[in-house]
Amino acid sequence: MALIVQKYGGTSVGSPERIQAVARRVAKYKAHGHQVVVVVSAMSGETNRLIDLAKKIQSQPDPRELDVVISTGEQVTIGLVSMALLELGLKAKSYTGGQIRILTDSAFTKARILSIDEQNIRADLANGNVVVVAGFQGVDEKGNITTLGRGGSDTTGVAIAAALRADECQIYTDVDGVYTTDPRLVPEARRLKTITFEEMLEMASLGSKVLQIRSVEFAGKYKVKLRVLSSFEEEGDGTLITFEEDDKMEQAIISGIAFNRDEAKITVRGVPDKPGIAYQILGPVSDANIDVDMIIQNVSLDGTTDFSFTVHRNEFDKAMGILKNQVQKHIGAREVAGDSRIAKVSVVGVGMRSHVGIASKMFRTLAEEGINIQMISTSEIKISVVIDEKYMELAVRVLHKAFDLDQEDL
Amino acid sequence: MALIVQKYGGTSVGSPERIQAVARRVAKYKAHGHQVVVVVSAMSGETNRLIDLAKKIQSQPDPRELDVVISTGEQVTIGLVSMALLELGLKAKSYTGGQIRILTDSAFTKARILSIDEQNIRADLANGNVVVVAGFQGVDEKGNITTLGRGGSDTTGVAIAAALRADECQIYTDVDGVYTTDPRLVPEARRLKTITFEEMLEMASLGSKVLQIRSVEFAGKYKVKLRVLSSFEEEGDGTLITFEEDDKMEQAIISGIAFNRDEAKITVRGVPDKPGIAYQILGPVSDANIDVDMIIQNVSLDGTTDFSFTVHRNEFDKAMGILKNQVQKHIGAREVAGDSRIAKVSVVGVGMRSHVGIASKMFRTLAEEGINIQMISTSEIKISVVIDEKYMELAVRVLHKAFDLDQEDL
Repeated sequence: MALIVQKYGGTSVGSPERIQAVARRVAKYKAHGHQVVVVVSAMSGETNRLIDLAKKIQSQPDPRELDVVISTGEQVTIGLVSMALLELGLKAKSYTGGQIRILTDSAFTKARILSIDEQNIRADLANGNVVVVAGFQGVDEKGNITTLGRGGSDTTGVAIAAALRADECQIYTDVDGVYTTDPRLVPEARRLKTITFEEMLEMASLGSKVLQIRSVEFAGKYKVKLRVLSSFEEEGDGTLITFEEDDKMEQAIISGIAFNRDEAKITVRGVPDKPGIAYQILGPVSDANIDVDMIIQNVSLDGTTDFSFTVHRNEFDKAMGILKNQVQKHIGAREVAGDSRIAKVSVVGVGMRSHVGIASKMFRTLAEEGINIQMISTSEIKISVVIDEKYMELAVRVLHKAFDLDQEDL
Repeated sequence: MALIVQKYGGTSVGSPERIQAVARRVAKYKAHGHQVVVVVSAMSGETNRLIDLAKKIQSQPDPRELDVVISTGEQVTIGLVSMALLELGLKAKSYTGGQIRILTDSAFTKARILSIDEQNIRADLANGNVVVVAGFQGVDEKGNITTLGRGGSDTTGVAIAAALRADECQIYTDVDGVYTTDPRLVPEARRLKTITFEEMLEMASLGSKVLQIRSVEFAGKYKVKLRVLSSFEEEGDGTLITFEEDDKMEQAIISGIAFNRDEAKITVRGVPDKPGIAYQILGPVSDANIDVDMIIQNVSLDGTTDFSFTVHRNEFDKAMGILKNQVQKHIGAREVAGDSRIAKVSVVGVGMRSHVGIASKMFRTLAEEGINIQMISTSEIKISVVIDEKYMELAVRVLHKAFDLDQEDL
């Protein structure tokens, strides 16, 4: 008998039929003798509907009151899921974040969980209940309703699993696990049986939007066994996210190929190579609330250097304007050039830490296909390159093959 | 400076525009130096939408979980109303039933309020806040969410007014007060400046659905000054519902003419006049969950009597079937006759207690128009007659005139 926390996202509870399917899955786990805590999101579309309603009243809704409004989405779902469980003859009981005192700080709309009072949950589980908890929400010390920000239900699931020392936290979503790369791009892409937290973080931030990054960090911190599964399929073990690297890295050097074509690159050429120049370039960009991803500065030649970075494609024009109008003359740069038709492709794997030659293999593979590399950036377990957008699919496919990701038993 | 509780019903907060209108009205009261607590219902249609959703999961939704689901309707409204107030530059703060601990019993979907912790409200009011409270909901001792049943927001408003010893509880709805009769029927109908609680109870139960009866009883018990007003009109004092009869009854003997054409009458003729016969007739009707309104039994002639009562028109066929198939033979009655084409017309007024001749004036007025009276039933402050449905409008009009209800200064 295990204690399992199951978290279901918005599409998994998006209709009465989907909610009934969730109840049937829970019933199956109960039939195997497991104790189950269910954490749910709002039905898909509901949170956006409530935010739109709020914005008709206040273009910038008051954060405390916005949390009062949007936390109702999950509250509706817990009632409906409990009803579906009761209808199947199971014992079930729902709790809002406030009712089990998921205590958070008072940062409305982006609160952080401080503690959970798991006594009621434990008592209900001991009495044979399935406990259904509203994700995404909590209360602060004064009893004000708070929410955890987008994707916060994942964090609730992990936090409850940590508080209960659950055997596993299962995250049900509309994909059945983490893949070596996007199967829509590479039909040979394979579901990973396991992936490490660090790899998951790199994969997620690179665009494999399976799990909210914060919940992965949280799971790592509290050593919660996380598993990503599909709520749309009856069978399948999903992907287990582990915090132990065990002996897996001996076999698989690379876990996956991530990619992103939402970025644009900007290069400031002929920048005087002196202290403070990076801040002078990126400060105004950051002040305009433009997020910057990759940043590259090479060693200088003849006292000047080239400074490159990437931004989201939607903010390319804005960033270019700032650099040309506010920055270029001020710092005495020769030129500001940009290109929005780029893609970022990354190989990710904890195994590369102990293996040389990953980078050269990646670069050689791309060179053999005539794909020019425009930018390179590396971390401990990731190598990212920026290439011409039109070669992205090709690059992902050849790298997937070159690193044997289409082979069984990763 | 007064402390005023304002309760707004579903149509009064039915859209962002209506919510903004509520905020402007509150702002006007604040500008006059008053302290204001706002109690709100769910946006019109929302509670039904949530119930329908629940019924797709469970045809008979679990009461505890149903309350979790439907209480979200009011929670959304308090957030939105607070935002609208903040947008006007006022200070505002919302509370769910649980947050100010509107303590109820555990009768889910029809809970009764036991107490209210008004400390937070008082502190917020003292700080200049408008306090916005979710109507219709509370929590039981264990922290479970409860709801008060349909129209329960009126009760919340009155209960908070009682707890705060507010100067007045204003009930905003889509009519601008209580009328001498329905203005759609009698254009000369006039809005009453005041009405007593007892009259209001008789008027409400007779079909003038302005206020939930329970909230009127509650207001009477705690001596809360209730005022019915329209949220759709800028001006107007509405109708004040008083628990003192003061000297008003010296002037107005009759306050209004109520009517109802949703009923049908059933007569059991030739019933043996012996103990227990009323129960033998109405027991099976009641067992079938059919509500009975007027009940009349006249003195007997030759050892048998006629027994009449009225039921809702929708249940007429069902009740007739029960009486003909189960009751008639069993009790040895001669005949079961029924008529669904009837109407009930009532004159209501505390003044009639000290005035003779009201009944005879009523009967003479109807007789002069050739309207036959089929049944009569009286209480301390009400006389009701059952007549042929086709004469209902005529009867209401002539009675309205006969009792001078179209005159100024009631």
